[in-house]
Amino acid sequence: MSGPPSRLRSILNHLTGEGGGKSSQTATPPHIHHLSPTFFLERAIAIEPQGEAIVHVTANGVPIRRTYQEFADRARGLAYYLKKKGLKRVGVLAPNTPAFLEAIFGIVAAAGTIVPANYRLSEDEISYIFEFAEVDCIIADDEFAHLLSAFRRKKGNVPVIVDLDTDVKEGPSSGPYDQAVLEGLQYDAENGSAGWEGLHSKKDDEDEMIAIPFTSGTTSRPKGVVYTHRGAYLASLANVVESNLNQGRCRYLWTLPMFHAIGWTYPWAVVAVRGIHVCLRKINYPLIWKLLKEEKITHFNAAPTVNTLLVASEDAERLPQKVHVTVAASPPSGYLFEQMTKLNLHPIHVYGMTETYGPVTKSYPMPEWEELPDQEKYAKMARQGHGFISSLPVCVIKPDQPEGVLINVAKNGFEVGEIVFAGNSCAKGYFKDEEATRKLFAGGVLHSGDLAVWHPDGSIQIFDRSKDIIISGGENISSVALESLLVEHEDILEAGVVSVPDERWGESPKAYVTVKQGKTLKGEDVIAWARDNGRISRFMVPREVEIIDELPKTSTGKIEKKKLRAMAAAKDE
Amino acid sequence: MSGPPSRLRSILNHLTGEGGGKSSQTATPPHIHHLSPTFFLERAIAIEPQGEAIVHVTANGVPIRRTYQEFADRARGLAYYLKKKGLKRVGVLAPNTPAFLEAIFGIVAAAGTIVPANYRLSEDEISYIFEFAEVDCIIADDEFAHLLSAFRRKKGNVPVIVDLDTDVKEGPSSGPYDQAVLEGLQYDAENGSAGWEGLHSKKDDEDEMIAIPFTSGTTSRPKGVVYTHRGAYLASLANVVESNLNQGRCRYLWTLPMFHAIGWTYPWAVVAVRGIHVCLRKINYPLIWKLLKEEKITHFNAAPTVNTLLVASEDAERLPQKVHVTVAASPPSGYLFEQMTKLNLHPIHVYGMTETYGPVTKSYPMPEWEELPDQEKYAKMARQGHGFISSLPVCVIKPDQPEGVLINVAKNGFEVGEIVFAGNSCAKGYFKDEEATRKLFAGGVLHSGDLAVWHPDGSIQIFDRSKDIIISGGENISSVALESLLVEHEDILEAGVVSVPDERWGESPKAYVTVKQGKTLKGEDVIAWARDNGRISRFMVPREVEIIDELPKTSTGKIEKKKLRAMAAAKDE
Repeated sequence: MSGPPSRLRSILNHLTGEGGGKSSQTATPPHIHHLSPTFFLERAIAIEPQGEAIVHVTANGVPIRRTYQEFADRARGLAYYLKKKGLKRVGVLAPNTPAFLEAIFGIVAAAGTIVPANYRLSEDEISYIFEFAEVDCIIADDEFAHLLSAFRRKKGNVPVIVDLDTDVKEGPSSGPYDQAVLEGLQYDAENGSAGWEGLHSKKDDEDEMIAIPFTSGTTSRPKGVVYTHRGAYLASLANVVESNLNQGRCRYLWTLPMFHAIGWTYPWAVVAVRGIHVCLRKINYPLIWKLLKEEKITHFNAAPTVNTLLVASEDAERLPQKVHVTVAASPPSGYLFEQMTKLNLHPIHVYGMTETYGPVTKSYPMPEWEELPDQEKYAKMARQGHGFISSLPVCVIKPDQPEGVLINVAKNGFEVGEIVFAGNSCAKGYFKDEEATRKLFAGGVLHSGDLAVWHPDGSIQIFDRSKDIIISGGENISSVALESLLVEHEDILEAGVVSVPDERWGESPKAYVTVKQGKTLKGEDVIAWARDNGRISRFMVPREVEIIDELPKTSTGKIEKKKLRAMAAAKDE
Repeated sequence: MSGPPSRLRSILNHLTGEGGGKSSQTATPPHIHHLSPTFFLERAIAIEPQGEAIVHVTANGVPIRRTYQEFADRARGLAYYLKKKGLKRVGVLAPNTPAFLEAIFGIVAAAGTIVPANYRLSEDEISYIFEFAEVDCIIADDEFAHLLSAFRRKKGNVPVIVDLDTDVKEGPSSGPYDQAVLEGLQYDAENGSAGWEGLHSKKDDEDEMIAIPFTSGTTSRPKGVVYTHRGAYLASLANVVESNLNQGRCRYLWTLPMFHAIGWTYPWAVVAVRGIHVCLRKINYPLIWKLLKEEKITHFNAAPTVNTLLVASEDAERLPQKVHVTVAASPPSGYLFEQMTKLNLHPIHVYGMTETYGPVTKSYPMPEWEELPDQEKYAKMARQGHGFISSLPVCVIKPDQPEGVLINVAKNGFEVGEIVFAGNSCAKGYFKDEEATRKLFAGGVLHSGDLAVWHPDGSIQIFDRSKDIIISGGENISSVALESLLVEHEDILEAGVVSVPDERWGESPKAYVTVKQGKTLKGEDVIAWARDNGRISRFMVPREVEIIDELPKTSTGKIEKKKLRAMAAAKDE
């Protein structure tokens, strides 16, 4: 076979997984190419190089818009820079910027692995992540680069490439990241301009590692989760289908952090359909409303707490376009669903974890729900539902069995068990932690650690992590269920319920509550309302209700129960 | 690990590929399950057993509606029947009936392979297909069962299960197919009611054969094309995304024959999103319009010729709902696109072949096309475009090179070359034909045999199979392009152009033309119009135009050029 230049080399590279001249002879037959989502970017520029790809306001306040060609060129520049320097395991510490998106494609195109870290963690935690993952380079946004000082004290030899996130492309004020991109493009130009064909957007083994996102690690050290090319590809396609990213040209707003499970694979999913990434350096409700309106956003993903505050914002108004809002993390309340729908924000309720590439179940709306009273309808929507199009069935197993023994709970809507996953929607395991990986997959399924019931219709519904169940006078109280009931009060914005010791009942529920703007409320008012409204069982009525300004939350927007428990314990002393 | 009953066994089976008790110990890790589209049906009943799945009017004229549970139960019954009898390679000779859909899932769930045959072929050709594929059983629709007599004379021992396609479920008049389904269900019930978990809806090797559809074989014997579980799964997901099957509840009308490339994988794709299959025993334009209106069809697939006749039907009227019409086979004319759009039928132009699981390229509409004059816009839509979301780049290579030498043509819109494919969108090869498979994949890419140009924007456009190019006085005339120009005449319905010998120019184009209902036209009128309308180059004006009642067509709706050439040759003698 003669060696043709240009595009054709690209389709042949997949056969050997060859990239940039390396010629390994694997036996992949011509009817198979290895699944890898990085190729979606190369495909996007083949179809529509001038299509809009990225909309952003830089750190210095300049609005920028980039085409797919510009996006891909910058990712390619980064890739060649990394290749030139021989860097393979690349940390990323950044908010939702164009540089982060470029890194997700550029690092992998250089045959490297993405290691994102949460910039809301402490210096020590960030240092732990990057050290543990053995990064040989870090791309850091200028605003957060100072968080690397602990890491730098230990690993001073690991280069840090700082992104200023400005509109300045050249000259001394353009910053090291832009310089690296330019250096990489220069390097490609000087070496025959192989472009994307000289890179690794197709993989020689689809089960290889593509990224190591870390869990939030609320109870112990964060764990590195191994994502594969195949897993990320299939999760991306599933997200396209399940969140309808393929309806017209999607305009996706980056409210969900990209460091979190690689943005649930949306960096790839949005590129797969040549959608528009609207970046966002931080959650700012007036700005989000401005973007929803001006950029005609069609999709975003966010935790219920972000949606709660969004709906409560002064700038909230019904949008002319339908917005698909993929909601996850903690179960949203029916009240929230209702409020969102009124604003033309249509919730798609999903559930998953870092170990499942983000979302992997969905509450599929059934036509017959439309006949139900609103509260029943929203209660059904708030269930976790069923496995995604790409998933094997999601099961709920008895939690009190010896490790590795798997027995399904009854599908009766009240026997509580543990949610388990299997197959392609599962990450490969924990990075450098065989023991934790073995436990994660005990018995051959992925253990979520989340407790749920299995309804007769086959849908699952999370109750709580076991520590969130309050046992009061022998009755099990779900703190999540009680929170949902409390926010039905017209003046309550959010509620967080924890267990407090009770002499008579063993434990009792205590609620921390925030109040809507312009409203006032006392704890005893809430208790009286809870006792009298007829929807809250007597044993579930909170013994104490404390009104606070804001609920403590994790970086992914979950209510931080640990902090609430500490607050309750401090009060009790 | 203790052996739990029920659902959980199902998620664990994928780990070993175990089904129905066979216990092979393959080393598939828990984060991988083998891609196979049969599982979509099992998933559909887990989510929405009462969801509508099949709408049909039986052969005896009775309208029936079946839920997903009924659909899956019948497929399961067939599967257990086949398992009981040890049948593995199952022929199907049927129009687009519920039984055909059930067979597509049931045969594979029994670890078998689907072998569909085109019922418009001759007895001998059908016999050839089933003999060559070594079927051990045939499911045949009663209307077409007589076409098996040639096969039966040779292979009298192969059982034929006749489907009457009636609404009669039990008793002597229910027919052998329904009896087999009942027998299978009975067998399952008598053997522990393992249900779907005792079947093979998950596969132990995704590269195994799932079906052998046959090419239409216009020039030689039909060839069996080997489809794999992985290939069919990825093609199904791609069709969901590319034809927007995931918008609300899709209602898919079966105008495309299921025997053709397993209905382009739509039996699986529609089930993956729990859409509604509206079956259709034969193409009947008044009936299609009735279904479009009454069943609120959202999607169908058809060749341009079907769309042409649909648009020309007396029953045509603008539909209230938007219908996605996936159009393939020969390039549609701009005129057809325009007419369809007016009726709220929105064409999605795709291209592919049996060897690529049906469609694999799409003409992606670009926003800037909206600014173009209609004719230019429709001309762009009529291009074959770019590879699907699941595909590697589609290339056009120089056709005059030694076998296996791959050199891309220039992207200049006029250098003609051969379209080639690579990777997951390619079938595994030809069944029992190593030499043809070797040629198909010469140089490591799949050779389409279709000639095309590559435009500067990266889109491809088919010209003709080489035999459809007419060389007249040294000029290359594309018969397809000339056909597109001729149907711009307001009274012409369809046109087919072939080459006829010409003493002066070597070859000349001759056009066969059909006229719209209520119009009359003579050959010389068309020639005069073609000469004077300013859009047809002088050398392209047909030397002869013959008005006929109907154009000869293949079973998949392509104009049968071979027959037109024969007609032209007969005339010349």
